[in-house]
Amino acid sequence: MLEYTMRVLLPDLPPFRALSVPGVTPVYFESGQVPPGEVEGFVLWFLRPDLRRTVLHRPGLKWVLTLTAGIDHVVADLPPGVALYNAHALHDRAVAQHAVALMLAAGRGLHRYRDAQRRREWADSGPMHTLEGRHVVIWGYGHIGRLLDGMLAPLGAHVTGLTSRSTPHDIETALKTADDVVLLLPRTPATRHILNAERLALLPSSAWVYNLGRGDLIDPDALNAALDARQLAGAALDVTEPEPLPASSPLWDHENVILTPHVGSTTDDLIVRGAAYAADVLNAMQHGQDVPGRVDLSRGY
Amino acid sequence: MLEYTMRVLLPDLPPFRALSVPGVTPVYFESGQVPPGEVEGFVLWFLRPDLRRTVLHRPGLKWVLTLTAGIDHVVADLPPGVALYNAHALHDRAVAQHAVALMLAAGRGLHRYRDAQRRREWADSGPMHTLEGRHVVIWGYGHIGRLLDGMLAPLGAHVTGLTSRSTPHDIETALKTADDVVLLLPRTPATRHILNAERLALLPSSAWVYNLGRGDLIDPDALNAALDARQLAGAALDVTEPEPLPASSPLWDHENVILTPHVGSTTDDLIVRGAAYAADVLNAMQHGQDVPGRVDLSRGY
Repeated sequence: MLEYTMRVLLPDLPPFRALSVPGVTPVYFESGQVPPGEVEGFVLWFLRPDLRRTVLHRPGLKWVLTLTAGIDHVVADLPPGVALYNAHALHDRAVAQHAVALMLAAGRGLHRYRDAQRRREWADSGPMHTLEGRHVVIWGYGHIGRLLDGMLAPLGAHVTGLTSRSTPHDIETALKTADDVVLLLPRTPATRHILNAERLALLPSSAWVYNLGRGDLIDPDALNAALDARQLAGAALDVTEPEPLPASSPLWDHENVILTPHVGSTTDDLIVRGAAYAADVLNAMQHGQDVPGRVDLSRGY
Repeated sequence: MLEYTMRVLLPDLPPFRALSVPGVTPVYFESGQVPPGEVEGFVLWFLRPDLRRTVLHRPGLKWVLTLTAGIDHVVADLPPGVALYNAHALHDRAVAQHAVALMLAAGRGLHRYRDAQRRREWADSGPMHTLEGRHVVIWGYGHIGRLLDGMLAPLGAHVTGLTSRSTPHDIETALKTADDVVLLLPRTPATRHILNAERLALLPSSAWVYNLGRGDLIDPDALNAALDARQLAGAALDVTEPEPLPASSPLWDHENVILTPHVGSTTDDLIVRGAAYAADVLNAMQHGQDVPGRVDLSRGY
């Protein structure tokens, strides 16, 4: 009896090489090279954009699992009828913790104290707050937003959640009394520069802005102007527009800008966790169980 | 009828000047000058040590409220029969949040990314973790420790609490599997250099140490040697021995040492909060209610 197995493209990384899922024939790709031939499934991670595009257009492809939370790098090239899954569960908890890290670092002045440490200066300086009693607006209240809310509760913050369906009035009302605005929205045509000059002007001058969604959620020129004019206390950005942030950007040098290089979901064990996640998805498919992370393309994220 | 009022020394700061407590006659002192005359109560904050000592020995003094959490600057000079109150409730929540801030900064590499920002470098670098699944040893499991435990729970950390009554065996067992050790103990003769070379050697080499208690809880030479030998991943210190940290200390330059200048409980509104706290204590005394923060001197903290 000839047993049917599903051919699936997987990244050629040791934890994926170590996987063994009954009914799955792995086909390993490297960042710059993908073996030819028909495949039914495509586990996408660490692949050059031009090669990604050609794989997405291969005949016979039935599904794609991107081991990222965002899907904006896939949707434009996804042929009709090909199912798309993301891996938000792989990233959510780390991104939520990265958000808390940035919020507490800003409040406790850790960025200024690092600068002072480099000058061997032991001196209390500048404004300091905790998150107690702060009004935190989580803009993009999905999986990560809900986790973040639960982490902020014991810190005494009050959370307002905004989504892509919030009205302009809801947004305006929330921003006017915000102490902290955390952007977690996905990249869609509707979210580009959603935080623009007009909305930055609504914020109290003591407010901080955090971006852990996509760089283009914020108009970078408007952000820089607001910081220069002290309309805003500071910004902590894990994503930027463009990205990587060019060396010429004025954001590097603002004392109250904190930059991390799109590492919100990075942990030392991310690739190990990613392989385990892919195995879970493959097993669920083999057993006809619900597969997590199915993307509803009508919503665009 | 001549009404009895209690004369109380208070710091000469605007929020204290604004206080009005029935039955209390305020007598204001400056950091370098204290008015003469008998007083019944002494609200101690921001006073030169030599003047503090003379006030503590004034005849007629019945009670001292130090608006600090620690009391080691008072006990040596406190005459028998004078009641002592501390103000841990004024500081606990901020210190617990400062501890979470330092732990997340260490895990997310914010100190390294600040250094990279100063070089205009956008690059993923070095180890990164979240607090998910970490074994956190809170050494000094009192008011702050319990608050910290509640803040760490939604971050997925597992906490072991140690107190000054923990046995050497308990301590050894906890340290051997610790990912993070947070020192919150008070300064007493028994806690000096409680984290010494021998105990640092018990920790996994991936562990981080945090000190938000008193600087002399850690043997600084042993800490520096452990960092040099990579027996330890890093240390974040809000208190040091000596303090301020001298410019000659090698700790300034360790990449994985994070320093803040004893600001764990600092917030912009600390003096306002301190005055409100003092008013609460004075009102409780006037009404014969329970006064919070009474120090049991037999425990020494």
